[in-house]
Amino acid sequence: DFLNALYEVRPAFGASTDDLERCRLNGMVDCGSRHEHIYKRTMLLAEQVRVSKGSPLVTCLLEGPSGSGKTAMSATIGIDSDFPYVKIISAESMIGLSESSKCAQIVKVFEDAYKSPLSIIILDDIERLLEYVAIGPRFSNLISQTLLVLLKRLPPKGKNVLVIGTTSEVAFLDSIGICDAFAVTYHVPKLKTEDARKVLQQLKVFSEDDIDAAAEALNDMPIKKLYMVVEMAAQGEQGGGAEAIYSGKAKIGISHFYDCLQDIVRY
Amino acid sequence: DFLNALYEVRPAFGASTDDLERCRLNGMVDCGSRHEHIYKRTMLLAEQVRVSKGSPLVTCLLEGPSGSGKTAMSATIGIDSDFPYVKIISAESMIGLSESSKCAQIVKVFEDAYKSPLSIIILDDIERLLEYVAIGPRFSNLISQTLLVLLKRLPPKGKNVLVIGTTSEVAFLDSIGICDAFAVTYHVPKLKTEDARKVLQQLKVFSEDDIDAAAEALNDMPIKKLYMVVEMAAQGEQGGGAEAIYSGKAKIGISHFYDCLQDIVRY
Amino acid sequence: DFLNALYEVRPAFGASTDDLERCRLNGMVDCGSRHEHIYKRTMLLAEQVRVSKGSPLVTCLLEGPSGSGKTAMSATIGIDSDFPYVKIISAESMIGLSESSKCAQIVKVFEDAYKSPLSIIILDDIERLLEYVAIGPRFSNLISQTLLVLLKRLPPKGKNVLVIGTTSEVAFLDSIGICDAFAVTYHVPKLKTEDARKVLQQLKVFSEDDIDAAAEALNDMPIKKLYMVVEMAAQGEQGGGAEAIYSGKAKIGISHFYDCLQDIVRY
Amino acid sequence: DFLNALYEVRPAFGASTDDLERCRLNGMVDCGSRHEHIYKRTMLLAEQVRVSKGSPLVTCLLEGPSGSGKTAMSATIGIDSDFPYVKIISAESMIGLSESSKCAQIVKVFEDAYKSPLSIIILDDIERLLEYVAIGPRFSNLISQTLLVLLKRLPPKGKNVLVIGTTSEVAFLDSIGICDAFAVTYHVPKLKTEDARKVLQQLKVFSEDDIDAAAEALNDMPIKKLYMVVEMAAQGEQGGGAEAIYSGKAKIGISHFYDCLQDIVRY
Amino acid sequence: DFLNALYEVRPAFGASTDDLERCRLNGMVDCGSRHEHIYKRTMLLAEQVRVSKGSPLVTCLLEGPSGSGKTAMSATIGIDSDFPYVKIISAESMIGLSESSKCAQIVKVFEDAYKSPLSIIILDDIERLLEYVAIGPRFSNLISQTLLVLLKRLPPKGKNVLVIGTTSEVAFLDSIGICDAFAVTYHVPKLKTEDARKVLQQLKVFSEDDIDAAAEALNDMPIKKLYMVVEMAAQGEQGGGAEAIYSGKAKIGISHFYDCLQDIVRY
Amino acid sequence: DFLNALYEVRPAFGASTDDLERCRLNGMVDCGSRHEHIYKRTMLLAEQVRVSKGSPLVTCLLEGPSGSGKTAMSATIGIDSDFPYVKIISAESMIGLSESSKCAQIVKVFEDAYKSPLSIIILDDIERLLEYVAIGPRFSNLISQTLLVLLKRLPPKGKNVLVIGTTSEVAFLDSIGICDAFAVTYHVPKLKTEDARKVLQQLKVFSEDDIDAAAEALNDMPIKKLYMVVEMAAQGEQGGGAEAIYSGKAKIGISHFYDCLQDIVRY
Ligand SMILES: Nc1ncnc2c1ncn2[C@@H]1O[C@H](COP(=O)(O)OP(=O)(O)OP(=O)(O)O)[C@@H](O)[C@H]1O
Ligand SMILES: Nc1ncnc2c1ncn2[C@@H]1O[C@H](COP(=O)(O)OP(=O)(O)OP(=O)(O)O)[C@@H](O)[C@H]1O
Ligand SMILES: Nc1ncnc2c1ncn2[C@@H]1O[C@H](COP(=O)(O)OP(=O)(O)OP(=O)(O)O)[C@@H](O)[C@H]1O
Ligand SMILES: Nc1ncnc2c1ncn2[C@@H]1O[C@H](COP(=O)(O)OP(=O)(O)OP(=O)(O)O)[C@@H](O)[C@H]1O
Ligand SMILES: Nc1ncnc2c1ncn2[C@@H]1O[C@H](COP(=O)(O)OP(=O)(O)OP(=O)(O)O)[C@@H](O)[C@H]1O
Ligand SMILES: Nc1ncnc2c1ncn2[C@@H]1O[C@H](COP(=O)(O)OP(=O)(O)OP(=O)(O)O)[C@@H](O)[C@H]1O
Ligand SMILES: [Mg+2]
Ligand SMILES: [Mg+2]
Ligand SMILES: [Mg+2]
Ligand SMILES: [Mg+2]
Ligand SMILES: [Mg+2]
Ligand SMILES: [Mg+2]
Repeated sequence: DFLNALYEVRPAFGASTDDLERCRLNGMVDCGSRHEHIYKRTMLLAEQVRVSKGSPLVTCLLEGPSGSGKTAMSATIGIDSDFPYVKIISAESMIGLSESSKCAQIVKVFEDAYKSPLSIIILDDIERLLEYVAIGPRFSNLISQTLLVLLKRLPPKGKNVLVIGTTSEVAFLDSIGICDAFAVTYHVPKLKTEDARKVLQQLKVFSEDDIDAAAEALNDMPIKKLYMVVEMAAQGEQGGGAEAIYSGKAKIGISHFYDCLQDIVRY
Repeated sequence: DFLNALYEVRPAFGASTDDLERCRLNGMVDCGSRHEHIYKRTMLLAEQVRVSKGSPLVTCLLEGPSGSGKTAMSATIGIDSDFPYVKIISAESMIGLSESSKCAQIVKVFEDAYKSPLSIIILDDIERLLEYVAIGPRFSNLISQTLLVLLKRLPPKGKNVLVIGTTSEVAFLDSIGICDAFAVTYHVPKLKTEDARKVLQQLKVFSEDDIDAAAEALNDMPIKKLYMVVEMAAQGEQGGGAEAIYSGKAKIGISHFYDCLQDIVRY
Repeated sequence: DFLNALYEVRPAFGASTDDLERCRLNGMVDCGSRHEHIYKRTMLLAEQVRVSKGSPLVTCLLEGPSGSGKTAMSATIGIDSDFPYVKIISAESMIGLSESSKCAQIVKVFEDAYKSPLSIIILDDIERLLEYVAIGPRFSNLISQTLLVLLKRLPPKGKNVLVIGTTSEVAFLDSIGICDAFAVTYHVPKLKTEDARKVLQQLKVFSEDDIDAAAEALNDMPIKKLYMVVEMAAQGEQGGGAEAIYSGKAKIGISHFYDCLQDIVRY
Repeated sequence: DFLNALYEVRPAFGASTDDLERCRLNGMVDCGSRHEHIYKRTMLLAEQVRVSKGSPLVTCLLEGPSGSGKTAMSATIGIDSDFPYVKIISAESMIGLSESSKCAQIVKVFEDAYKSPLSIIILDDIERLLEYVAIGPRFSNLISQTLLVLLKRLPPKGKNVLVIGTTSEVAFLDSIGICDAFAVTYHVPKLKTEDARKVLQQLKVFSEDDIDAAAEALNDMPIKKLYMVVEMAAQGEQGGGAEAIYSGKAKIGISHFYDCLQDIVRY
Repeated sequence: DFLNALYEVRPAFGASTDDLERCRLNGMVDCGSRHEHIYKRTMLLAEQVRVSKGSPLVTCLLEGPSGSGKTAMSATIGIDSDFPYVKIISAESMIGLSESSKCAQIVKVFEDAYKSPLSIIILDDIERLLEYVAIGPRFSNLISQTLLVLLKRLPPKGKNVLVIGTTSEVAFLDSIGICDAFAVTYHVPKLKTEDARKVLQQLKVFSEDDIDAAAEALNDMPIKKLYMVVEMAAQGEQGGGAEAIYSGKAKIGISHFYDCLQDIVRY
Repeated sequence: DFLNALYEVRPAFGASTDDLERCRLNGMVDCGSRHEHIYKRTMLLAEQVRVSKGSPLVTCLLEGPSGSGKTAMSATIGIDSDFPYVKIISAESMIGLSESSKCAQIVKVFEDAYKSPLSIIILDDIERLLEYVAIGPRFSNLISQTLLVLLKRLPPKGKNVLVIGTTSEVAFLDSIGICDAFAVTYHVPKLKTEDARKVLQQLKVFSEDDIDAAAEALNDMPIKKLYMVVEMAAQGEQGGGAEAIYSGKAKIGISHFYDCLQDIVRY
């Protein structure tokens, strides 16, 4: 079953730069020193992999709350590293597949990577790859065993691999031993007021006077949700206001912005 | 298995305006400001989807007690939005199918939507799609994983989608992370006395003198059950009275109305 | 699998008046006002279905202790309503079938009903249809999901359906949300002393002097067990006495009657 | 699967008088009034079935500790009733069969019985038919549902059936509702000292002087184990003594008898 | 599946005297009165089976800690009884088989035994036959049901069988009712100091002066581990010393013996 | 299924010296007396197997925290023993196989070993072979039963086998009885400060002045992680520094070393 699944894997599988770009739909803005630090350290790991002899496999986990920028960050490392082989493994391209087909897909990406001297493999949203649900909890042990082995198995001589994982369920991953299987772990945080202010200054959708208030209201917000609420608010109370805002002809009304924020934040 | 299931999906699948109309068998009456507010905000989301560039996928959950009007509300948004593609995904059309066939049906609707520039997908009674039962609890993890991914997966460039979910088991959905997967959540409430009075005034089945008493008795009743109890009562104690009531020749007797109410409300 | 099962369903499936008659092997005697009341109200629901426009589906649950007369009552409604289509869905005719075959059988009955302008469907002993067992508890979620959907799905335009369910495990049905899926619920009780006396007077197997004592002893007995104990007692201590009793030539000895009662009632 | 299984059932299946005789390998001795009483009452039920019109199905459960004589008792009723169709359903003849094959076997026996005007069906060791094990507990719900339905389903007109069940796990059967499915239940007890004395007097393997002491030691022993310990003791301390004892040339030594008793009774 | 499995069972299956001999690789030495007593009583049961008329099936369980000599003991009974048919059923010869194949193997041995007038069947390491693991606990209910039935099913007329079971998980076996299914149970113990001394005197690998100290250290050791630690110690600190010890040219150093003992005993 | 799997096992399966060498990618350095002691005792067991007559099977478990050097140690024993047959059984070569295929692979290695007069079998990372995950806990009982039997089954006459297991989940293995199945168990520890100092002196990547501080910081670190952190640190703060360090032209900066240590050690 698994072997069949393995052969059926279409050769077209894999991530092009286009796929990676699609992972950061809103681009990359400066959102504070903590994000910056993680970016630098992970680029250094890519560097280590490039030159390493003794440790042909380096593994690194980016964990943090939903929407904090983990996927965009890993895609950016993938793009900036200039490695010949960069693939993202995501549940999106495996909807409805059986556990063993998913395993086969994952193994295939690693086998392909072993053919390139330098590779980056992104395991995006590991809890989703594992079909994790908090009740039970339930998850695919077949896939978790596969990851546990792949995160430890050495590539063939002369092939070096960097594996980057992302997750917003770090406690669960820890409980099944997947955190320990990564050599290094970084926490990707939500924005603090000062981070949010930086981002808003780059977006230019608030009047100068409102930026501080808006940033204050966005304290402890993940970067992804910040984009969502800004777009809702740009719409205006009656709809149809977005164009004016984004072209700079108008600014978002702060009180409507507060309203939108309430719909998004659940009490 | 899943792939087979995917191909077997009949092209005829999908919801016509007829299907949407059938979701509001008793029409739409004014039932108070809280229902009104939700309708307006959700229409605004449809507007945002129509013009959005940065966020091609907007998701919104309508949750509330059984019979509070969630399905009728989403069908109404679907009709009023005038989007070229509006589909309702409901357990009714998938009775007895295997989990993977259901997944295939659901995925098919999303794939079809991705072909239209503007789409609305209604996930009706999500707990029923998930085959949820409180004991255990049990539910289909295959389907819940599929929804979790679909609620996050971006449509292709230039295609915008609004997903509206409905549920009367919001606590369960929350416990498996499906609430968090929606960007916005609105609570559709039962009727208060004043809402019920408004509805009864439009129905004209009580004499002026009884309306207040009847509305009082209907406090905290969902709109759907209000219609049921009114029809039972219109029947009369000996049967055969409905025609007279609905043609306006007679009014419902208030004490028989109380009796019917007791059969419907479980102690 | 389910689809196959659906097609395999023999056309001969369904309940004739004979089947309904067999559900009340001991006929219908007057057993008190509470049984009477339920009969009348349920007949009224049948009436409502006959004339309804706004609510083409009415659902009603008869719940009560084992042997209290639920099945006989629904069969009687089915017979007395004179609806063109009356079917009883019971575990008896589905012994040993797989869950999905049972589902297919059930769905088939509903589909058939949708072809008749007026139908009554009796879901007899729902806990048995669900393969319920208290330990675990275990039950068929496939069947329970099917029932939950069928109890809510509207028949096509112009077709009206009354669904009557029976159960002696109302707490379980409640815990999986099936009670809430019925619009109306009635409790079918055991007999009180005065109900039992009424029944005994109609049976004429006791001497006038013993009837009060016997009725007293039968307090809190379900009607079905009453028939069982009377037949055991009619047999006599040495056997062979039944004919004399039923022909009226002899009466049941009250002390032997007490003995038989003890074998039947578990301490 | 089940249907296939049903057809595969060999016509040769069923119990001859030989099978029934094999169920009471040590014959039937008088072992006290309590056993006697149960025998008489159950024979009376057979009588009732023979003449009954109103209740074509009578069901009776014999429960009691392991080895107390339940199987031998039911076989004896089967033989003494002189009914044309008597079958014993036992796990022995279904070792290793799948649950659905077992169901098919059981259903087949009932279907066969429905062809005879008078039948007795013995469900021997119901917990074993159900594949019950205390840990979990685990058991076959498929089989338990089948029994629950069969114990309630009426035979066709003119066919009367007595079902006798045996079990030594009455608490378990109660917990899954099988006890309630039987109309009558009798408890088959272990022997008391006076019962044991009666049995020993019939066996004649002790000297008159030892009988009282031996009976005392056998207080609270099931009849089946009494036979086992007597045979062990008859062997003698060095072996080879059995022939002399059974031919009446020697008697069992009381102290060796005590030793054997200790090996059999677990502390 | 089971039936297929039954036919596939190779006729060559079964235990020759060679197999039985292999079960006592270190021979049988005198290891104290408690082992002796069990041997004698079990041989007496074999005797009873040889002559019995009333009880054609006798069953006996040897339980005790891991390595206490249960398997060697049963093999010895098998050899010494001189019965025409002696078979050992062990998990070793069924590695990796499915539950139903294992059942078929087990049933086959019993069926074969029924063809011989006198048989001994050894169910070795019952917990392993049941695929028991303490976590859960998990085990094969299919196999446990099979054993429960086989331990009670009478052989055909004129065929007598002695079944000997062994286990080191008596508490588990008790919890699933398998202990009760055996007529007699014996506890095979670890060695006490005086038992160990007896064994060491027969082995002659210690100098007279050390025997007492060594025996003392071996208190509460199972006979099988005694052999292991003696062999380790005989090796010497630098290896290569075994030949000299076993040929009697040298003796085991007591302090090195203590060291080895520590590696074997877990704290 | 299992039998098929057994035949499908490719003959090429097995470990060459190359495979064993790959298990100690960083070679073997002196890392303190505790590692040394285990190495010597395990070599002695290999010696015992070489000459043994009475115990043809010796089993030994190396347990200890993740990365403490268990796999490298067993590979080294395998190489240094000079046995004709040395195989490593590891989850790496069985990714995605079904439980029964894995069993077949494992059994095959033992069957192959039985053909050689002297063999070493390494069961590497037993918890991974068992597909163990702490939640539940879940694991393959099929594989655990197979191991339990194989660890006890004697090789054929004249064939001697040493089995070495490794695990970092000794508590779990204990709970399912696998620890008890090994004759001897050794604990492979993390490094203490003095062990780490020894290793660093051999690596020569710190200046003399820093070695003590570095060793101090590495107290309680497994040998494998020590290599990882040293390589990260050798990279330097800006990357590109590794070559200079390993060629001896530069030394690792102690403060950068502390930084790297923090990324690796999770709080
Ligand atoms: N500096 C930045 N780092 C990360 N993301 C950024 C940054 N600047 C802008 N973004 C935008 O923020 C969004 C981050 O979303 P992303 O999907 O990466 O979050 P996530 O943590 O992976 O979310 P989830 O937990 O849902 O998987 C992207 O749209 C990205 O374009
Ligand atoms: N303003 C309104 N909003 C919603 N429903 C209305 C309104 N006015 C009338 N209705 C009627 O009330 C009924 C609402 O039932 P609906 O099926 O939408 O409830 P629901 O919340 O989806 O119930 P359930 O929890 O059972 O799915 C419909 O028959 C609809 O025609
Ligand atoms: N007025 C009555 N109502 C109901 N049953 C009656 C009445 N008069 C007589 N009976 C007889 O009483 C018996 C009632 O049994 P019935 O099978 O309906 O009980 P039930 O509640 O469905 O039992 P169960 O819980 O076992 O399904 C029937 O034999 C019926 O003929
Ligand atoms: N009066 C009696 N009643 C029952 N059994 C008797 C009687 N006299 C002798 N016996 C013998 O006692 C034994 C009773 O064993 P039986 O198998 O019937 O017990 P059981 O209760 O069915 O045991 P189990 O719980 O193991 O199924 C039989 O061998 C039978 O021949
Ligand atoms: N008197 C004796 N009784 C039993 N075994 C003996 C005796 N004398 C020597 N031995 C040896 O002791 C060993 C006992 O091991 P055996 O396998 O029988 O133990 P066990 O209790 O079956 O162990 P396990 O619990 O692992 O199955 C055998 O090698 C046997 O040759
Ligand atoms: N004396 C030594 N003993 C063991 N390993 C050593 C020694 N000296 C150097 N090493 C190196 O240390 C590393 C030990 O890693 P190894 O994989 O054996 O650890 P492990 O305990 O098996 O880890 P895991 O728990 O992850 O399986 C190897 O790279 C090996 O080359
Ligand atoms: Mg992400
Ligand atoms: Mg709805
Ligand atoms: Mg009924
Ligand atoms: Mg019995
Ligand atoms: Mg043994
Ligand atoms: Mg290792």
